[in-house]
Amino acid sequence: MKDAQRAERGDRLLREIFGAAGKQAMDPLADAVPDLARYIREFALGEVWSRPGLALKFRELASLSALIALGNADQQLKPHLHGALNLGWTREELAEVVIHLAVYAGFPAAMRAARVLAEVLAERESPSV
Amino acid sequence: MKDAQRAERGDRLLREIFGAAGKQAMDPLADAVPDLARYIREFALGEVWSRPGLALKFRELASLSALIALGNADQQLKPHLHGALNLGWTREELAEVVIHLAVYAGFPAAMRAARVLAEVLAERESPSV
Amino acid sequence: MKDAQRAERGDRLLREIFGAAGKQAMDPLADAVPDLARYIREFALGEVWSRPGLALKFRELASLSALIALGNADQQLKPHLHGALNLGWTREELAEVVIHLAVYAGFPAAMRAARVLAEVLAERESPSV
Amino acid sequence: MKDAQRAERGDRLLREIFGAAGKQAMDPLADAVPDLARYIREFALGEVWSRPGLALKFRELASLSALIALGNADQQLKPHLHGALNLGWTREELAEVVIHLAVYAGFPAAMRAARVLAEVLAERESPSV
Amino acid sequence: MKDAQRAERGDRLLREIFGAAGKQAMDPLADAVPDLARYIREFALGEVWSRPGLALKFRELASLSALIALGNADQQLKPHLHGALNLGWTREELAEVVIHLAVYAGFPAAMRAARVLAEVLAERESPSV
Amino acid sequence: MKDAQRAERGDRLLREIFGAAGKQAMDPLADAVPDLARYIREFALGEVWSRPGLALKFRELASLSALIALGNADQQLKPHLHGALNLGWTREELAEVVIHLAVYAGFPAAMRAARVLAEVLAERESPSV
Repeated sequence: MKDAQRAERGDRLLREIFGAAGKQAMDPLADAVPDLARYIREFALGEVWSRPGLALKFRELASLSALIALGNADQQLKPHLHGALNLGWTREELAEVVIHLAVYAGFPAAMRAARVLAEVLAERESPSV
Repeated sequence: MKDAQRAERGDRLLREIFGAAGKQAMDPLADAVPDLARYIREFALGEVWSRPGLALKFRELASLSALIALGNADQQLKPHLHGALNLGWTREELAEVVIHLAVYAGFPAAMRAARVLAEVLAERESPSV
Repeated sequence: MKDAQRAERGDRLLREIFGAAGKQAMDPLADAVPDLARYIREFALGEVWSRPGLALKFRELASLSALIALGNADQQLKPHLHGALNLGWTREELAEVVIHLAVYAGFPAAMRAARVLAEVLAERESPSV
Repeated sequence: MKDAQRAERGDRLLREIFGAAGKQAMDPLADAVPDLARYIREFALGEVWSRPGLALKFRELASLSALIALGNADQQLKPHLHGALNLGWTREELAEVVIHLAVYAGFPAAMRAARVLAEVLAERESPSV
Repeated sequence: MKDAQRAERGDRLLREIFGAAGKQAMDPLADAVPDLARYIREFALGEVWSRPGLALKFRELASLSALIALGNADQQLKPHLHGALNLGWTREELAEVVIHLAVYAGFPAAMRAARVLAEVLAERESPSV
Repeated sequence: MKDAQRAERGDRLLREIFGAAGKQAMDPLADAVPDLARYIREFALGEVWSRPGLALKFRELASLSALIALGNADQQLKPHLHGALNLGWTREELAEVVIHLAVYAGFPAAMRAARVLAEVLAERESPSV
């Protein structure tokens, strides 16, 4: 497969999964370190996320759980929570994920994720545009 | 709900999800710090894992992803990989999870998880008993 | 022990240890993911913190040290620094803890904790109410 | 204060706090990267640990809690658990610390610490010499 | 060597490497926890950074890489990115470092570093004074 | 560029940089999760490491520093320390890197890296073949 096809496939996934939140996360990156943005489109999205062996919805659950456990990625957590809702996880299920991860990553990591989840839900109820 | 009921429910889940690997992880713990083992049965399993809002199979994906990202929990990763297989994830899907998390937690964390996955698959093919 | 008693005991500890800073940390959480807030009251505070085997003052030192080392929990660090002062640790001792942890978690983690400590001390000198 | 005095003070603390477990941890280090061993004696022990503002017993609780939370330092955790026992913490209190940190760093980190604590207690009951 | 000489050497390095960004990071620290600031000057800069065995430029690459991987130190990352530019790394090389670390610490850590790098480059193009 | 060319370029780098230690790290991975091994060859080595903007020797310093700071990747640290020696860093410089990172990631992470460095140096003095 050619890199251009991969990039296109990655762009399509970026729009489908993350919507406006994905664009908001990627645009400043494309200015700062353009090839990092390119690898996210070509490799992370266009290659890894595009593999057929695991449904997108489950890939997002894995991504989210890793981000909450790492605890250092609030800015990345936000588009992924939007992505999870776009892919069909309900807000109740995402609250369950946050609670569940208190067991594995500790309550402070879960509290931090709960705050970002509340911000994401508020954004979707009163979109800024 | 009474604590005794929670503990019983937790024990049942421990057996169902983790099988022999769960017993192997919990037995030394029950000697070392008995109340930590008790909270795992009563709270982690008997309360959090027992919540109806998210399927067990998805709870295991979240747990696994957090453990791989934290990268410091090989001993806990092993029973959880057994648990994931017991709950219906295929070995191909678990390999996908490992690959997917290279994007979020880096290749070294994924390489480490791949090694533990290989050990778990080997254990299941030639069980020690 | 019944869950309601545990929750009550947890609420009492929340007020005693963290004061207004505890309420500020818990109120938004109770909206976002109510059962996470409930488990913090019932399990973290009403069960674990309420165990007789280790004095509250030492439990707070352990909590603080973990939060500084994890380095991803500034929002949780603030109420815990208030809690530590409320439980009898002096500001000089807390500065010692910050210095001490530079040895174990590195200077950047300690610098980050020092900044949060300065904010907490400023809040106590000129309370916003 | 001269560096030689600091090193001497550090050596004395190393023996007093960690005993044989300290020597076991430091000897291979002194071969591998001698100046790292020197800074541990001169700076970590001879300067930071020697500051009067916080009792040794509390410094060990802070160290232990950070190591358990970081979760990547089993080899360092072992001498520190010996140190904690030498400084007057009881084995019951150390089990409480392990349980307490499940709240902040998650159950897997606590389970890992529980296993190291069991090893340390076994070593003290049947010393190898 | 006397501590006063070390502190002086550390201060000189602080100015040479980090410039105004170093002063901005250290001034609030000197108020909050003065002896932490002192150890940074005397030990971190005046002793470790001053060792002849590794060029300053390479020490900064090691520092930067560790801070990006730890992912919890944006405030420390900023002066270090200024330091790296002051020590002769080009902005293109620093973008390469950010991309390279996506492999080891994951894309979210790299995205976070890319954002801080963009801020640092903007500060240098339109200095606030 | 075609994927096959990238994989070839990655394989060449794998041999050149890591030698026998690279093969030892990759062979079990290729059995366990073949596509993870493929992405390491094609993407991590064949694409990122192959970018012209930063010398291999500096890429290895960045990799090493990240691995030491993450502290959870001893198995990956070993081939990278071999790689660093192969790329021209001296054993004295690598000891400096270990000491330097005590400042950023704490002494326990540096002690752990020192032990792995000693193992790598011993392997090179008395190769097993």
